[in-house]
Amino acid sequence: MKIGMLGTGMVGQILAAKLTELGHDVMIGTRSVVDSKARTGKNNWGQPEFGDWYKEHSHIKLGTFAEAAAHGEWILNGTTGHGTLPALRSAGAALDGKIMIDISNPLDFSKGFPPTLSVSNTDSLGEQIQREFPNAKVVKTLNTVNAYVMVAPKSLGNGDHTLFVCGNDADAKAQVTAFLRREFGWEQIIDMGDITNSRATEGLLPIWIRLMGVFGTPMFSFKVVK
Amino acid sequence: MKIGMLGTGMVGQILAAKLTELGHDVMIGTRSVVDSKARTGKNNWGQPEFGDWYKEHSHIKLGTFAEAAAHGEWILNGTTGHGTLPALRSAGAALDGKIMIDISNPLDFSKGFPPTLSVSNTDSLGEQIQREFPNAKVVKTLNTVNAYVMVAPKSLGNGDHTLFVCGNDADAKAQVTAFLRREFGWEQIIDMGDITNSRATEGLLPIWIRLMGVFGTPMFSFKVVK
Repeated sequence: MKIGMLGTGMVGQILAAKLTELGHDVMIGTRSVVDSKARTGKNNWGQPEFGDWYKEHSHIKLGTFAEAAAHGEWILNGTTGHGTLPALRSAGAALDGKIMIDISNPLDFSKGFPPTLSVSNTDSLGEQIQREFPNAKVVKTLNTVNAYVMVAPKSLGNGDHTLFVCGNDADAKAQVTAFLRREFGWEQIIDMGDITNSRATEGLLPIWIRLMGVFGTPMFSFKVVK
Repeated sequence: MKIGMLGTGMVGQILAAKLTELGHDVMIGTRSVVDSKARTGKNNWGQPEFGDWYKEHSHIKLGTFAEAAAHGEWILNGTTGHGTLPALRSAGAALDGKIMIDISNPLDFSKGFPPTLSVSNTDSLGEQIQREFPNAKVVKTLNTVNAYVMVAPKSLGNGDHTLFVCGNDADAKAQVTAFLRREFGWEQIIDMGDITNSRATEGLLPIWIRLMGVFGTPMFSFKVVK
């Protein structure tokens, strides 16, 4: 499938590489191709900046947000929380009618670590996206785990942990759920309901971030035990 | 141990009954003993209102918030989110120097179901309590599961799920953790750090409440899978 992968950070890198390896035709989207290629060295997380990473992954297509969105039958939004709406605006009508897997989290790092949620208790980034792009089929998911876990859930507890999906389009959710099972091996996927449930899954980020501090690693996930 | 159990709802009823059964000397605290005894019938959750419940549990002491707080060597706060600070104010100096297990969640039901968090992204009810009662040793815990699960964690997944504690007093946290293991059988207890981590665990409520809607039962919990 043709996929537009928006975002050049860890999420974009790891998902683009994995989906390409799985045979998909991926284009990574960025604000500026020139600027992204110019970023080298290591980021705050000790991971290669995009420019260095892309030298090893130049078989993956790279374009602007608009070009990547136009390329994709599906769009994956892996931009940062504060970068999400500007990125999607620059993609514009290329989002219409398409499934968009929204992985972003509305985090405010301006006051240091740990970041806080940047949306109110009665809103979410998932809802903001769906409101501003009503013709996109937004499915919020994958945002509650690290990128390595997103594409390899069985790397933790033999896959015995839970992923959440929500969105307004039942068929889009069903397609995304099947995709996540087939491509990455997710087994426990809970359909939370409509896109307002983004409040609930984005709301996992405060505890996720603090647990990362306690454990010293982002390699963990939540399981719902009944 | 002498325990002051603040609150007459499900949390207060179930914890007071279990702790009494375990041999503790519990006094339930309420705003008005007369009013609490006068509440009969079933509540919105199909549970007996306090007056009916207490007819079957009159061996448990009952007093005002101030009397229950004075009675307890430890205080358990099981009041509703919006009732917590008024209840604690009426207990006043009786809280000083004591361990207070804070189980409350800052939920706003005024707009119907599902409720939203009633604190900002940079605050929590646990922190509000600790700020207003600096001489109490507030340990936030148990607030991420239903009252039946609080006292019987092994009733779900043979106990293979996670409880979180946080608070500023390391010794109080260690004592509470040992108490939860010994009295209720909790096995997986993660110390999140200081009381600001209440933001993280209270932040689980939005997803908890929506999962209760999906499952049609409050009998579930979260496990952190590493």
